Amino acid sequence: MIGCSRCDRRAVIFQRHSNRHLCKRHFIEDFERRIKLAVRKFKMIEKNDRIAIALSGGKDSVTLTYTLAKLYEKRRDLELFAITIDEGISNYRPPTVEIARKVAEQLGIEHVVVSFEENFGMTLDEMVKRGDKKPCTYCGVFRKYLLNRTAREMGATKLATGHNLDDETQTILLNFLNADMERMARLVPQRVQEGLIMRIKPFRYIYEKEVVVYGLLHNLPMDFEECPYSYFPVRASVRDFLYEFENKYPGRKFSVMNSFEKLIPCLREMYPQIDLNRCERCGEPTPKKVCQACKLLEELG
Amino acid sequence: MIGCSRCDRRAVIFQRHSNRHLCKRHFIEDFERRIKLAVRKFKMIEKNDRIAIALSGGKDSVTLTYTLAKLYEKRRDLELFAITIDEGISNYRPPTVEIARKVAEQLGIEHVVVSFEENFGMTLDEMVKRGDKKPCTYCGVFRKYLLNRTAREMGATKLATGHNLDDETQTILLNFLNADMERMARLVPQRVQEGLIMRIKPFRYIYEKEVVVYGLLHNLPMDFEECPYSYFPVRASVRDFLYEFENKYPGRKFSVMNSFEKLIPCLREMYPQIDLNRCERCGEPTPKKVCQACKLLEELG
Repeated sequence: MIGCSRCDRRAVIFQRHSNRHLCKRHFIEDFERRIKLAVRKFKMIEKNDRIAIALSGGKDSVTLTYTLAKLYEKRRDLELFAITIDEGISNYRPPTVEIARKVAEQLGIEHVVVSFEENFGMTLDEMVKRGDKKPCTYCGVFRKYLLNRTAREMGATKLATGHNLDDETQTILLNFLNADMERMARLVPQRVQEGLIMRIKPFRYIYEKEVVVYGLLHNLPMDFEECPYSYFPVRASVRDFLYEFENKYPGRKFSVMNSFEKLIPCLREMYPQIDLNRCERCGEPTPKKVCQACKLLEELG
Repeated sequence: MIGCSRCDRRAVIFQRHSNRHLCKRHFIEDFERRIKLAVRKFKMIEKNDRIAIALSGGKDSVTLTYTLAKLYEKRRDLELFAITIDEGISNYRPPTVEIARKVAEQLGIEHVVVSFEENFGMTLDEMVKRGDKKPCTYCGVFRKYLLNRTAREMGATKLATGHNLDDETQTILLNFLNADMERMARLVPQRVQEGLIMRIKPFRYIYEKEVVVYGLLHNLPMDFEECPYSYFPVRASVRDFLYEFENKYPGRKFSVMNSFEKLIPCLREMYPQIDLNRCERCGEPTPKKVCQACKLLEELG
């Protein structure tokens, strides 16, 4: 038996970045400490917030919903609810939507499922057949659109997503390798704008592996199925490199996050947040005259 | 025969980043164009400059010396000379010092060889035996010290080194992965300070492979021997990743350079250049009271 580095119980995880073995209790403590740290550092949760959680039903969002409920449901001034977007991907999406329903029910959290089909008259599968764009383009634009609109209509002041340290550092490094500082700047927490709910990422300091271990320790349903449309070859190269680099030099994902955070003041200065308009067609916030969702819908006929 | 993308001569290189095959003439033209571009962009060479070239005798510095002579020796207001530092690494260094001598002689460029032994009373080999620091620590500190002092004493206004795009992007990415923005800021061209000769890197937009091809096309001596002390495991990981990434997605090294250059104004603001003192012992410029070279020499006894 390998013992915990902080007590004499059995270790459930070896944290390479801290070079510690941790038992269930100390791992959970450390996990939740880093969430609270991120929340405080970026003022993710403030007094009287009503927080919408983007609950896809995958491992990250399920664990996020559980954790936020555990850590913040005692706060009388806060409210939590969950939104699941059903993009309409046959064989893949229905089981996770079901997971999302069960998780929300078990936690006693208000939950809505909003579908592409109801809102846009077609599923993602149909969009992919009709249009010439990549599936991830349709999915990304319409999912974010519905998440923001639903969150706002339901009175949310924040929108929490399950992006973890692995996701974030991949995006950061990818943007750096692409010299896409404008996209990098979009990762910077933004000031509040009318119509746009502020997004928060409480797992930004949590490794993907830790999300899984935390979820398993709490018997949360862990879905590892990958979307059949998922195709990001460049990101996959970056992911694999970061995986191997972290493996050889533990903690380097924190360094990448740290590099990014050091650049935040610069990125804010280089790419000041522009004032948003209301889309001429649907009224949703957009930097242009017509929002991306309305444009894509037009193309799709 | 594969033809040049710009004329009908035989191609000597396939430039993956531009997706072009180039003949000798058009490759050389493009190579020299990118050097002039870098020189102009960063005001590397200005009127009446006297440029010291750090000529180790390796492929990069040999090619650099040749190219600078070719491109700028007609300019009456400019002067070039070369400095070779003989660190004292048995079996490895003597042949390249010899190459440096021959190259300078053939090009008719003033040349001095300055050794660790003459200046510090011991070779690098001896330092490594006596001290407990890594060879690269001694080599880096003392080489830069002698280069700067010699350049200054010989009236240089600029000090050119052979760092190419591969070297620079490795360092940039390494600093990013290490969250070492301070070291990143050191890559930013600095304002002139008394006692410190401004370093210039005319090959910053040139791939290592191109340096080699250019050198071979001009029958320059190409030494590929690696220093026996060379040991940079982290840098090697980054080098290999960049190599593969560039291989899959040609041109990404330019993107990394581009990311860095976009950050230059920020880096200048984040890490303003501090005024240097004169070392209490040797009088050379240093941010501290005693310079790093004098400290290391003291440790070495």
